[in-house]
Amino acid sequence: MAVLPESAREVLESDGLAHLVTLNPDGSPQVTCVWVGLEGDDIVCAHLGRHQKVKNIERDPRVTLSVEAPGENAIGMKHYLVVHGQARITEGGAPELLQKLAETYVGPGVKFPPTPDPPPGVVTRITPERIGGMGPWAPAPA
Amino acid sequence: MAVLPESAREVLESDGLAHLVTLNPDGSPQVTCVWVGLEGDDIVCAHLGRHQKVKNIERDPRVTLSVEAPGENAIGMKHYLVVHGQARITEGGAPELLQKLAETYVGPGVKFPPTPDPPPGVVTRITPERIGGMGPWAPAPA
Repeated sequence: MAVLPESAREVLESDGLAHLVTLNPDGSPQVTCVWVGLEGDDIVCAHLGRHQKVKNIERDPRVTLSVEAPGENAIGMKHYLVVHGQARITEGGAPELLQKLAETYVGPGVKFPPTPDPPPGVVTRITPERIGGMGPWAPAPA
Repeated sequence: MAVLPESAREVLESDGLAHLVTLNPDGSPQVTCVWVGLEGDDIVCAHLGRHQKVKNIERDPRVTLSVEAPGENAIGMKHYLVVHGQARITEGGAPELLQKLAETYVGPGVKFPPTPDPPPGVVTRITPERIGGMGPWAPAPA
């Protein structure tokens, strides 16, 4: 497990979208943008349905996510965080986590999901294993 | 080959970073953010060095890239474009393409790369095969 430095935690608690990569059955990459947050040292995101990415994680737990961040390097290239990790799916809790994340990603006071009686869904929990990208969290060039 | 709709072309010609996914030798995803542009129907990006992503593409041409875009859906989720494609590497031309892309990504009149006599590098050319994400280019939910 990699410990996330404070600079990386700030990015993961910001309103920056996480580009989440999972692996399809044929090994090709699947990408969707998701809202993420932190629970202890895990990165979490929520899904109301059993989407392809959920099925992918259940078959192959290797995931990578990238998030754009404020700032840039000396020659104008923007900062971004990359986290490689192992993901696992837990049942239920999606509406509660989405409601919490919506306060950051949509705005304070928003009701999310906007529909009544949402399904319990699933939560993805990612244990970080390696950090990269470009920024204070990545001492070497990406 | 998928024909890129004009709405997707606009995103690929914007200053939005492309989160480029390639596949490592062990099948795990590798992600870096790159500058992209269009040459005809191909998506292009340039590399001064023979980075891991270049080696990955030479071994497995399957790539996916995602780019954030202006706008959001009815419930506040931001638009983004995903392109799945086949990539190939061509030798040389990196400084010229980087100079062109820097005008969009850094600003008009910038000199890029900022060092004299850059190496010829390589160019990645991606033929789009499937388009997704969330926005005018993705009629169905992601």
